Amino acid sequence: MEAEKKRAGSAVFPDDGRKRVVIENVAPEIDCGRFPIKRVSGDIVAVQADVFSDGYDVVAAMLLYKKEGEGSWREIPMEFLGNDRWEGAFAVPEPGSYYYTVSGWIDHFATWKNDLKKLFQAGETLAVSRLIGEALMVNAASRAIGNDRNHLLEMAAAFRKSKDDAGALLISQQDELARLIRVYPGSLDAAMYGKRLEVVVERREALFSAWYEIFPRSCCKDGGEHGTFRECEKYLPLIAEAGFDVVYFPPIHPIGRSNRKGKNNSPGAEDEDPGSPWAIGSADGGHKAVHPELGSLADFERYVTLAKGFGLQVAIDVAFQCSPDHPYVREHPEWFRWRPDGTVQYAENPPKKYEDIIPFDFENDQWQSLWEELRSVFLFWIERGITIFRVDNPHTKPFLFWEWVIREVKGLYPETIFLAEAFTRPKVMYRLAKLGFSQSYTYFSWRNTRMELEQYLTELASVQDYFRPNFWPNTPDILPEFLQYGGTQAFVIRFLLAATLSASYGIYGPPFELFVNEAIPGKEEYIDSEKYEIRCWNWSDPKNMRELISLVNRIRRENPALQTNLNLRFCETDNDNVVCYLKGTTGLSNLLLVIVSLDPFNSQECTVSIPLEYLGVSSGHPYLVHDLLTDEKNIWHEEHNRVALNIHALPAKICRLTPRLRREHQFDYYM
Amino acid sequence: MEAEKKRAGSAVFPDDGRKRVVIENVAPEIDCGRFPIKRVSGDIVAVQADVFSDGYDVVAAMLLYKKEGEGSWREIPMEFLGNDRWEGAFAVPEPGSYYYTVSGWIDHFATWKNDLKKLFQAGETLAVSRLIGEALMVNAASRAIGNDRNHLLEMAAAFRKSKDDAGALLISQQDELARLIRVYPGSLDAAMYGKRLEVVVERREALFSAWYEIFPRSCCKDGGEHGTFRECEKYLPLIAEAGFDVVYFPPIHPIGRSNRKGKNNSPGAEDEDPGSPWAIGSADGGHKAVHPELGSLADFERYVTLAKGFGLQVAIDVAFQCSPDHPYVREHPEWFRWRPDGTVQYAENPPKKYEDIIPFDFENDQWQSLWEELRSVFLFWIERGITIFRVDNPHTKPFLFWEWVIREVKGLYPETIFLAEAFTRPKVMYRLAKLGFSQSYTYFSWRNTRMELEQYLTELASVQDYFRPNFWPNTPDILPEFLQYGGTQAFVIRFLLAATLSASYGIYGPPFELFVNEAIPGKEEYIDSEKYEIRCWNWSDPKNMRELISLVNRIRRENPALQTNLNLRFCETDNDNVVCYLKGTTGLSNLLLVIVSLDPFNSQECTVSIPLEYLGVSSGHPYLVHDLLTDEKNIWHEEHNRVALNIHALPAKICRLTPRLRREHQFDYYM
Repeated sequence: MEAEKKRAGSAVFPDDGRKRVVIENVAPEIDCGRFPIKRVSGDIVAVQADVFSDGYDVVAAMLLYKKEGEGSWREIPMEFLGNDRWEGAFAVPEPGSYYYTVSGWIDHFATWKNDLKKLFQAGETLAVSRLIGEALMVNAASRAIGNDRNHLLEMAAAFRKSKDDAGALLISQQDELARLIRVYPGSLDAAMYGKRLEVVVERREALFSAWYEIFPRSCCKDGGEHGTFRECEKYLPLIAEAGFDVVYFPPIHPIGRSNRKGKNNSPGAEDEDPGSPWAIGSADGGHKAVHPELGSLADFERYVTLAKGFGLQVAIDVAFQCSPDHPYVREHPEWFRWRPDGTVQYAENPPKKYEDIIPFDFENDQWQSLWEELRSVFLFWIERGITIFRVDNPHTKPFLFWEWVIREVKGLYPETIFLAEAFTRPKVMYRLAKLGFSQSYTYFSWRNTRMELEQYLTELASVQDYFRPNFWPNTPDILPEFLQYGGTQAFVIRFLLAATLSASYGIYGPPFELFVNEAIPGKEEYIDSEKYEIRCWNWSDPKNMRELISLVNRIRRENPALQTNLNLRFCETDNDNVVCYLKGTTGLSNLLLVIVSLDPFNSQECTVSIPLEYLGVSSGHPYLVHDLLTDEKNIWHEEHNRVALNIHALPAKICRLTPRLRREHQFDYYM
Repeated sequence: MEAEKKRAGSAVFPDDGRKRVVIENVAPEIDCGRFPIKRVSGDIVAVQADVFSDGYDVVAAMLLYKKEGEGSWREIPMEFLGNDRWEGAFAVPEPGSYYYTVSGWIDHFATWKNDLKKLFQAGETLAVSRLIGEALMVNAASRAIGNDRNHLLEMAAAFRKSKDDAGALLISQQDELARLIRVYPGSLDAAMYGKRLEVVVERREALFSAWYEIFPRSCCKDGGEHGTFRECEKYLPLIAEAGFDVVYFPPIHPIGRSNRKGKNNSPGAEDEDPGSPWAIGSADGGHKAVHPELGSLADFERYVTLAKGFGLQVAIDVAFQCSPDHPYVREHPEWFRWRPDGTVQYAENPPKKYEDIIPFDFENDQWQSLWEELRSVFLFWIERGITIFRVDNPHTKPFLFWEWVIREVKGLYPETIFLAEAFTRPKVMYRLAKLGFSQSYTYFSWRNTRMELEQYLTELASVQDYFRPNFWPNTPDILPEFLQYGGTQAFVIRFLLAATLSASYGIYGPPFELFVNEAIPGKEEYIDSEKYEIRCWNWSDPKNMRELISLVNRIRRENPALQTNLNLRFCETDNDNVVCYLKGTTGLSNLLLVIVSLDPFNSQECTVSIPLEYLGVSSGHPYLVHDLLTDEKNIWHEEHNRVALNIHALPAKICRLTPRLRREHQFDYYM
């Protein structure tokens, strides 16, 4: 009979069909564990998981973690949150990789202990249950060693001998007993979550930093000559006083002559045109050389050291592309895609064309030697004191390359920070973040309305385990329309949004500070751009916003709420010209309310809705609202509060909220 | 120098760093591919994925699929949806397992072809580009064979010889050329999505069926004697005429005597008490025997065959537990957990206690022999014509066991359907669905208000790739409060909701049809429950709802929109006592508007908002609203429409919508 034959078929069993606990839905976990999550030194990593079993036995869950290189897991008991969800957390004090996973098991002893208590409370007999419990203790003792063994046997004996059930119950509920039983588990061990998940921990600056971009050649000598690293030194105190963390230089390498761009990106350069710094490589060298007119490598190293003294780190631009004059072109023709006419197609980043640049061919047979050389570029500069790289157009080089090179470099130098200049499609940007970039440029530059900002920040919150934004109101490539037509208050608005909505932000410095807003007509590009010519900025122009920048950077340093991208929460207002949000640290010990008018022309008023429940305040209870920009203080009591933003003063407020005023403080503040 | 040493370290490269295409976010995919998705025969499986590359080359994506046992993948080109998202679909005509995955590659030829067109349109020279294209064709020819090779060489020659660029462009854009180039790809082959994802295809009844539960012992002989399978035959025409698909019997096996339950679950049974059918096993046999008072195994098989003649399938209850009198207890004591006093703790499903039942110990050393025996129970009944099993309390047996046994049984008999009677925590229910149960009982029985229903159905929509609901307004275990106090209209309301909100639904038949609503005071349980005594229902009682049931089951069979759980969409109403939803097939060729009053006592009116855009109708354009319950027809024109639900007639409407009336039809309907 066919059916009989079928029944006789041998079955394939799972390894141990008695592992009854299931672990699923572990968070955070990116793409099934394909990519690590990101954290910074000093963070606490909270991990949640669904851990459950069939039936009604008591389940226990453990968070396991270790730092890279450690042999065995460290264990953190997880806490039950309800609905089969568990949570545990561990600290990540140092840069590098940590790993975590989850285990779960049936806690037969706890099950028995609970049942015993229930029986007792129901007034039922404990006789059978006591025999079972004693066996559990004796069994554990048989696996235990030394004192533990004796201790378990003693407890088992005391439990057996206890004349009344109440006394036995008391013994059964001792924490020490539970601990010993746990130390010597039976044959049915824990079920493991199948994956080892990774946390890449970076130093704090990967998350929190203020960037200042400057073209070193524009730190002109008197008389408007080509700037040098030595001239740049003069501006270090200014940048440091303004409270920045990072000074970022566009490429500092020799600039090619072939197809050099003239002023305003014109195809034919005049003899005196300095060319675009992104057209890297000439007879003077390539990615490991400095442009001779900027000075020597020693000058550059001297600048980096001096900057450190001012608390500033220097970031350089890494643009993996070549001028046709780059030594690589001659020495490694195999790294380029030669066309039948003996040329290489110039680079593009549609709609932009870079006639002065040729790309590497990452599909070439010698891709490994190319990758190794490019890795050596990072290592070269790291050895010269640079640990922050702004990577130009990473989205035009293969994902696998970036994943490899970042892991290689961070394996040697975990403190290295990579900022992706990927202005491209969202999924490409997120992939670059997943595979290792510490930070990324964003669409912030073009998000101006309240709805745009709320939607975009909500999207960023959903990817915050791996994507860290760096908000730039302008770059040498981008002079947004809003800045072009909005006058000085447009600069103030965009600066305040960038500096408070994202833990990392940056400005393309001098032209931003000085409210430069002249664009090529119909485009979002600077006219007479520094990319193609030397601009000697008048740093002492009285019309500048350095004072505000300095104040806001101080506020950022003094308020941990602005040093994280967590806990951003938009508040309702009745005026779409005003955006309003709360930023708080975990536990809300530091809590800011930021209110920014989005209208650069007119004063705006609105009613702001404060989520009192979130603040832990009841309606009618006073809370302090202290504007850190003006030092103005107010006491609010209610959910809805009227706010005026004066266009002739500051179109924004950054208020520190102190939700729980004690009576004596209330008195102070009312005075 | 330490740094130099570091740089010298050998690098570990990926296998092929030139694979530039990334495939991620494939959907559907459950728990990283750990579990299969579910479909039914005849479905089309739509698969989406993000497929993209660095740079600006043209990317192509392919959906690969095959049926279990097939060697090579079948290929379906995926279509670009925008935002790096691609979609493809394949048909699954037969029950069994299918597999799918995605591949993607850089289409160098398409990239070149597009560039050529752009150059031509910009009026630029094609000279270099034409040389490149010719090389692509000649290279493909070098890999091609037979006619294809010749054809490629011919096209390359024609392309080269074409005097004007326009002619060359024309040749380059031929579909045949693209096809041949694709057939003979170069060395850089496709990137594969790393996972092989599975679809478990079941027969249509796994998704769409109407169940009728009946205790065979209540199909009494005249005079109220214990019913038999032979007596049951008499009711087959009635059940078939009412339009049901499945007749489901609670356990039909010998009932134990030890600790037998008396009427109303009382601990001590009288001699004449028949006991609970779930207390399986006696001297007469266990899970492979039938209760002697019901008849013989042959009688049962005869009933199953007769039922088939009426278009009815018989489902039986599989309850893996034993009366203490079950032969297993004697023959396989190793399958039970014996306590020190020589007893086995009776089963519980808190807060319920089953003193007449003992559970298996799935943690016993001989778990494999237990699993094999339980598998043989399914196979035994399948060989006797049963292919639908209602599984009792699956959540009190290990997940691994169910995953194994369902896969084993479906491997032999893919047509087998498993309904999980898991009234437990949501994550446990969903896990059981993921691991293989075809359908599951749900919380529907306790979701009465509009908000409750909308929230619950929205939750179910989010798990519809693996969890198929079966909605029961009542079961022998559940007489919900709403039915207790709501009178006959409560039964009508709950029936209509179950039958239209879920493709599968069931009723515990006679007491539901007959509006039986007497409960044990303070509980949601039937008084004088059939679980503990024989109830000879008066099937010919004129106060019954069989006519409505019959009509609704016909409507379900005639309207494909009610045969799927997709495309459920709630509509707004201005009255929370009314719930309103659209159910449509893909493409909306069959579209129903269901409006149900949730108030069993009063007539209700409301304004229903119809999403005209979703229907493809512009405001003011007429659409037909045909109530299939009353045959009443209306023409509506607008989004908002007034509806009255008369409590003295039917408190609900099931309207077929015909959104796009042509002029001549409009004329007809206005007459």
